[in-house]
Amino acid sequence: MIVKPQPISGYYENMPEEQILEEKFKKIIQKNYSLSGFTPLDTPVVERVDCLTAKWADDNEIYWIYRLNGEESNDAKLGLRFDLTVPFARYVAQYEWVLSFPFKRQHIARVYRWERPQKGRYREFYQADVDIVWNGKLSLFADVEVLSTIYNSLLDLDFWGFELNINNKKFLSGYLESLNITDIAGTIWVIDKKDKVRKDKFAAMLQEVNLNEDQINQIFNFIELSKEKSSTELLEYYGKTYNSFNNLMQEGLEELKYVYNNLLALWVKQDYIKINPTISRGLNYYTWTVYETFIKGAENMGSVSSGGRYENLASNFTKNNFPWVWGSIGLSRLLAVLRELKLVETNIKTVSKVLVVNMWEETWKENLNTVKILRENNINTEYYLDSSKIQKQMKYAYNKWIEFVLIQGENELQEGIVQLKNTLTEEQLNISLDDAIKIIQK
Amino acid sequence: MIVKPQPISGYYENMPEEQILEEKFKKIIQKNYSLSGFTPLDTPVVERVDCLTAKWADDNEIYWIYRLNGEESNDAKLGLRFDLTVPFARYVAQYEWVLSFPFKRQHIARVYRWERPQKGRYREFYQADVDIVWNGKLSLFADVEVLSTIYNSLLDLDFWGFELNINNKKFLSGYLESLNITDIAGTIWVIDKKDKVRKDKFAAMLQEVNLNEDQINQIFNFIELSKEKSSTELLEYYGKTYNSFNNLMQEGLEELKYVYNNLLALWVKQDYIKINPTISRGLNYYTWTVYETFIKGAENMGSVSSGGRYENLASNFTKNNFPWVWGSIGLSRLLAVLRELKLVETNIKTVSKVLVVNMWEETWKENLNTVKILRENNINTEYYLDSSKIQKQMKYAYNKWIEFVLIQGENELQEGIVQLKNTLTEEQLNISLDDAIKIIQK
Repeated sequence: MIVKPQPISGYYENMPEEQILEEKFKKIIQKNYSLSGFTPLDTPVVERVDCLTAKWADDNEIYWIYRLNGEESNDAKLGLRFDLTVPFARYVAQYEWVLSFPFKRQHIARVYRWERPQKGRYREFYQADVDIVWNGKLSLFADVEVLSTIYNSLLDLDFWGFELNINNKKFLSGYLESLNITDIAGTIWVIDKKDKVRKDKFAAMLQEVNLNEDQINQIFNFIELSKEKSSTELLEYYGKTYNSFNNLMQEGLEELKYVYNNLLALWVKQDYIKINPTISRGLNYYTWTVYETFIKGAENMGSVSSGGRYENLASNFTKNNFPWVWGSIGLSRLLAVLRELKLVETNIKTVSKVLVVNMWEETWKENLNTVKILRENNINTEYYLDSSKIQKQMKYAYNKWIEFVLIQGENELQEGIVQLKNTLTEEQLNISLDDAIKIIQK
Repeated sequence: MIVKPQPISGYYENMPEEQILEEKFKKIIQKNYSLSGFTPLDTPVVERVDCLTAKWADDNEIYWIYRLNGEESNDAKLGLRFDLTVPFARYVAQYEWVLSFPFKRQHIARVYRWERPQKGRYREFYQADVDIVWNGKLSLFADVEVLSTIYNSLLDLDFWGFELNINNKKFLSGYLESLNITDIAGTIWVIDKKDKVRKDKFAAMLQEVNLNEDQINQIFNFIELSKEKSSTELLEYYGKTYNSFNNLMQEGLEELKYVYNNLLALWVKQDYIKINPTISRGLNYYTWTVYETFIKGAENMGSVSSGGRYENLASNFTKNNFPWVWGSIGLSRLLAVLRELKLVETNIKTVSKVLVVNMWEETWKENLNTVKILRENNINTEYYLDSSKIQKQMKYAYNKWIEFVLIQGENELQEGIVQLKNTLTEEQLNISLDDAIKIIQK
């Protein structure tokens, strides 16, 4: 019986050239996370359902797993992780007496969410997280490390301009308090929607959380100001009226300054970060640093990296206190956005850097020796699988965008050379194998 | 409410130092797979159940997934992949008109099987596969590429001796035919169990598939011979009586010779490969090359890498013919075996190569500048998260086995030097930052 293969709604699948891009992105992110001392830590894709539902989850989004055939076993109910944070919190609580803190980890992996399929929403997608957790107390420098690491990674991905919008929730909450707003959480929730709705709708939403006209106008000004002014200007502006602030605002502003100055000391370029007091991430449990990242000129496509600080990571799994800072690049989402904006594209369909033409009967031993020497020199080398006509082998190299083709027939062997052809420039050289290696390695 | 975290039966989870080893293994395997021109290709962890059950599967082992809360949707029934081959076969069939052949891919990823938990059996585990597929016809050199790539990877993992046991099923089947055995498949199935049961039990099993005493003795001799003789001796021995062979045996022997000679031409060392006519992999659909890999001195712990050729990869998904050669390293299993044999061990708990001591008030800007310079030089660098006492920071470095500690206080800054301490040798140097970088990079 033949089962016709069909795509699964919400599950994306790469063609080889797309996979090469995704791998490249993963490697760059992993390298940058490692440079900052975040050590890889994987957890199972599968978690106990009671852990998954302990917090944060919209239950409806959870995939449950069970045996296709066979009775229910006595095993615990299991499901697929919907983010990388809940498993990490569970891990920290489970091994809190074994782990050595502060603990900095990275995790680039897939998560699973049942959602109605829609553009740009996947049910299986990659996230690339960094986490710093410490028992008891976690210095504000952790926020700096997470932000600078995310910045370095995005910069190294080299796709286009982006902007990390950084805020401190104390500043925002303190500001709302200073306006005598009572429903702070509700107002913050609305402010998070400011770029997603029209201005009149936004005002109506603020009215719904019981803000009066004056308060609404103040908030409009507050937002306008944060748009107009640069980070330095904003910090200066708020610094001038610092003494009139309530404690929460003062604390928030001090912390924002600290984070900003430390980022600059770590060579983060001002163009790429923006102190933005209106960033809120909506959710209540972020009470400190929060950030969102937008691609320049494509802000309407949403945030491609976000994170923040939460004072109690593992509260559902242990009584002990684990303050935690987190940052995440939405890898699948970022790639989707970049593809849509046509900022990334590739035709390269293989990791192979050179194709050695298969001449078989004449020179197979020498050819294989050459293949081995190329690989020993860390060059990804493909040997064509049979001794088809040379045109067919060349066509294969062009199809897959293999940069070099190397020919070593009887004539070349007698002369002690190889023919090296660059498929991009069409340049063809008769040179020694040593020189060919140098050219390919360049 | 606090949910007490508990391990899930059959799902292993790494401590940081174990994860570092697993990552190292993954990277080495990936590098070697790429050197041979196998390009990465990932597929979703989730497949349609009708694809999963189309072939090869013990239905009982399949995990099905569905929404935890919410009505049944109209979506297709979905499950988790139990190997990397079925999804690959589905992929090749689905995109057969888009892909360019021959297609060489690698896939290092997790698979899921419901099994009764037992030692060394996981329900979630990593496999590291290479595949070569071509439409129509696939040259025997593909078998050589897969075998040499697996060999290179295992050698580069540098754990201990291992032996790739290579056979050609034509030779084995032809041999059994020559003994006038009628139940060839049944006999091969029994021969696959030869190392798992006692000799008398083995003889009894052969009797059960209707072999007479003479046939059983012949098989005992056949097995004995394959143990005693080296690959070269065996090929020579069988070569002498070549003309008395049936066609199947002759073909099998020719192919074995071809594979062996080509492996040697690719510098594969004789000590690590063994032509072994008794290897069968039990399953019927391997009709050509098959191999199993054992760790030297731990053969009883089973095969850590296996593979073979199958003439029709995607027969359940398309009418077209896709001959295919495959090799797989059972990464999770290999690591478990090596750990049990105490052949791998590490105390290193982080990717960080150097800890920069946090002196804060005095010199924070200069320290951060140093951190950035180290990272720019591709050194994984951790900056201690607060300005705790230096003893506490040193203890942290020793705990996590960070090789170097770098101190840059006011005195050092005045002298234009840094203090560099090697935590392994206890050597301490007062040198320039440039020199420190050179030492750390070594």
